[in-house]
Amino acid sequence: MSYTLSYIVEQLGGELRGPDLAVARLAPLERAGQGEIAFVSSPKFRRQMQESQAEALIVNEALAAELDGRSRIVTADPYLYFARLATLFHPPKALRAGIHPRAVVGEDCRIAASSEIAANATVGDNVVIGERCRIMPGAVVGDGCVIGDDVTLYPNVTVYHGCVIGNRVGVHSGSVIGGDGFGLAWDKDHWFKIPQTGRVVLEDDVEIGANTTVDRGALADTVIRKGAKIDNLVQIAHNVDIGEHTAIAGCVGIAGSTKIGARCTVGGAAMFVGHIEVAARTHIGGGTLVSKTIKEAGTYASSYPLQSMKDWLANAVHVRHLDDFAKRVKQLERELETLKKSKDESHE
Amino acid sequence: MSYTLSYIVEQLGGELRGPDLAVARLAPLERAGQGEIAFVSSPKFRRQMQESQAEALIVNEALAAELDGRSRIVTADPYLYFARLATLFHPPKALRAGIHPRAVVGEDCRIAASSEIAANATVGDNVVIGERCRIMPGAVVGDGCVIGDDVTLYPNVTVYHGCVIGNRVGVHSGSVIGGDGFGLAWDKDHWFKIPQTGRVVLEDDVEIGANTTVDRGALADTVIRKGAKIDNLVQIAHNVDIGEHTAIAGCVGIAGSTKIGARCTVGGAAMFVGHIEVAARTHIGGGTLVSKTIKEAGTYASSYPLQSMKDWLANAVHVRHLDDFAKRVKQLERELETLKKSKDESHE
Amino acid sequence: MSYTLSYIVEQLGGELRGPDLAVARLAPLERAGQGEIAFVSSPKFRRQMQESQAEALIVNEALAAELDGRSRIVTADPYLYFARLATLFHPPKALRAGIHPRAVVGEDCRIAASSEIAANATVGDNVVIGERCRIMPGAVVGDGCVIGDDVTLYPNVTVYHGCVIGNRVGVHSGSVIGGDGFGLAWDKDHWFKIPQTGRVVLEDDVEIGANTTVDRGALADTVIRKGAKIDNLVQIAHNVDIGEHTAIAGCVGIAGSTKIGARCTVGGAAMFVGHIEVAARTHIGGGTLVSKTIKEAGTYASSYPLQSMKDWLANAVHVRHLDDFAKRVKQLERELETLKKSKDESHE
Repeated sequence: MSYTLSYIVEQLGGELRGPDLAVARLAPLERAGQGEIAFVSSPKFRRQMQESQAEALIVNEALAAELDGRSRIVTADPYLYFARLATLFHPPKALRAGIHPRAVVGEDCRIAASSEIAANATVGDNVVIGERCRIMPGAVVGDGCVIGDDVTLYPNVTVYHGCVIGNRVGVHSGSVIGGDGFGLAWDKDHWFKIPQTGRVVLEDDVEIGANTTVDRGALADTVIRKGAKIDNLVQIAHNVDIGEHTAIAGCVGIAGSTKIGARCTVGGAAMFVGHIEVAARTHIGGGTLVSKTIKEAGTYASSYPLQSMKDWLANAVHVRHLDDFAKRVKQLERELETLKKSKDESHE
Repeated sequence: MSYTLSYIVEQLGGELRGPDLAVARLAPLERAGQGEIAFVSSPKFRRQMQESQAEALIVNEALAAELDGRSRIVTADPYLYFARLATLFHPPKALRAGIHPRAVVGEDCRIAASSEIAANATVGDNVVIGERCRIMPGAVVGDGCVIGDDVTLYPNVTVYHGCVIGNRVGVHSGSVIGGDGFGLAWDKDHWFKIPQTGRVVLEDDVEIGANTTVDRGALADTVIRKGAKIDNLVQIAHNVDIGEHTAIAGCVGIAGSTKIGARCTVGGAAMFVGHIEVAARTHIGGGTLVSKTIKEAGTYASSYPLQSMKDWLANAVHVRHLDDFAKRVKQLERELETLKKSKDESHE
Repeated sequence: MSYTLSYIVEQLGGELRGPDLAVARLAPLERAGQGEIAFVSSPKFRRQMQESQAEALIVNEALAAELDGRSRIVTADPYLYFARLATLFHPPKALRAGIHPRAVVGEDCRIAASSEIAANATVGDNVVIGERCRIMPGAVVGDGCVIGDDVTLYPNVTVYHGCVIGNRVGVHSGSVIGGDGFGLAWDKDHWFKIPQTGRVVLEDDVEIGANTTVDRGALADTVIRKGAKIDNLVQIAHNVDIGEHTAIAGCVGIAGSTKIGARCTVGGAAMFVGHIEVAARTHIGGGTLVSKTIKEAGTYASSYPLQSMKDWLANAVHVRHLDDFAKRVKQLERELETLKKSKDESHE
């Protein structure tokens, strides 16, 4: 499977400069060779671009000028262009529509004939599954779930009963949608479990990574809104609300009832306490502890960078004494003031 | 399914004030309407309470006085009462006792006839399963496990060979009980794997969230004691011992051989180093690094809250220089002392 | 099954001192009794060693001298010796070679007759599986994977299509190998998903813990090199490269394209930003944020230890004001200098 550059431009836009030729694969700039096309996302890779053996390059206008005579596609956003081209080169694998004889499907389900229920998948009772879905091996869909069109549940995903999944949603392997929230009330000498009776709603175009957990709501629902993207090993507690097109990187934890606005980005391993709100278009740095409501969009951080163990041992101990420290500096300021005054007076 | 308030009080205690009427659902205070009952956990929700459209409210004595004429149930702990009422409204789904024809069960097992082994579940050899258990689709129980009564293993749970699970235990989807601990000995030029030959013991009334891992002991057992509750995505390493009725929130990690006492609470994303002990009734804040034994019960924390990126960049750099800082303050104190002395002397 | 000490020494080396007798089990030093053998890894356990009821002990030369008359095996590295002995006492369970009638295997696979494909396991099309492998219940192997000899995929592991696994690799339950990396390009008003077209390569002797995720590369591969050991709940993003014999503890996150050298150790819950390199033989403390390239091998840390909530509240607030602090100290230094000078001048 190879495409001429002119065919690619016809399909995806952009402008072809230099000779039209065929490419068969995408490759990283520094490794691309014969028959391969690479992209340049930033002028800081100028040197690698000049040295690249790629057959063709995807570049912006500014860099295009430096590639005289070479085959190149010029576009405003080479990274996005590359993403579209990758989709052209790697169309999703065709479905095998139908219920595999080794799948298990419960009673009173409505499953579109165009969808695939794979071997060793399990679908409960009263489940609705739309067109062109893939329920892959080992995936389990609980009773009463409603799933839209073009949804993929990768192998070994679990969706608990009663959850709602929109169109074009992907949930990667091992993720758990709709498990019980961590709701406990102390009862004299033990924890009494609070039944978790809400649902999880994943709206259209949501993607969930691998081994992520999204708990069902306690009373109301946990909601992940249209176009939000969640990475691997993320914990989303009960009644959390994630805004549209918000992207959350791996290892993040979000405690109960926290509401994150639209179009935010959250760096890896950030942690959110419960019952707070984060304004739309807020950006949270990796490893940040989000300990209170953020009303103003902006970029926030809290984590501290590493040092050699020797330096760290010397410094970290003082963090424990900053209050004493603050008092001593205050005291120094006072005494110095006194000294200065007395000196001024003795001069008068 | 609806209940009169008088029936509810008859079942769960508390005192009915105002008109007796029927409710059909629980709902959050701010959304509850006709036929719905809500609870008020704290006087800080007084305004929402006054504005609530709920048919009936669960309140404590103090708040009850402010609801003249409205239907209300008065109880010392409205949150706990709500939990009990939710259980009344949402009884667990009935079992389908028996081994599903699409389940796979090994040899020499003793499985009570009242238990359900669901489709696509796998049970090994020599397994004992008590009364009224649910082994849900995709769950795998290893050889020689012993499971008590009223246990639920949710879909895609894995229990490795030889583990022991008490009565009324729940393990949510994707959790792994009894995987190998991370035991390695360096052998000249590679890691030699130390066989992990202990077990995991989950005592009565333990609940484990989704995608949590509890490693088997190296020699002795990893033990989670009676009534302990563990949330999602928690890592519990080999030979850890979690005390009775201790509750651990999501994303926590506990390194090997650490022992946490009874009735502790651990906030999300806290991390424990190995081989330490934490006193009973200790409370650990979210994100805390528990780096040493805690002998005295109390509340502990270590994480630092976020700032705007600009402020954070200005401040974080100094954490790397606190030792230098400390030396400079010390030096200032010394010099100021000298100055003061010389001044006093010059005055004499 | 019991072995005489002389047989053990014959098999594993070391020197027997004291009476030859039979032992049937390994046990921890403080609990070992009749028929049990324990090891002493460090002189700090001298007291426990002296009080131990173990039938026999594994010790180094220095400690052996303090055990006059007792049965003991003397070796340079008692911990490693114990590991080998555990392997002798606990040989891996025998395979049940063949494809279980309740396993599902796709078309055009080459699976060695000596390997076991267990009940409810699913193998895709065009898969190659070498000798003596175990694909356990609920495991799913995607189309086109190539797996070497003596590999164990524990229950409910998922390997996505096209991944490559070497010899003697173990992947524990719930782990996901080859899920899509978190690659997104912003396209006017939504995220455009970048197809992840690389693979995951797990080289020989790699072991992966439970519920860990290793994402496939975006274009090139994600590689975990020979002998590397990864614990539970670790996130390894696309295009990461983990060096030979590097060991990574639980709850670690490694962002995209980061390269960690050979023979490093990484403590629990450490987090690595993307696109950095870490020198071979670097040791990273638990909870460290690795925020930049580490060129020099050594030991690094960044996390801060806990305090009582009272002390922490007093201290943590100042971290937010360190920059102001630094300016005040600088100012104090300046003013003191001025004072000293003026004093010197007034003395002249």
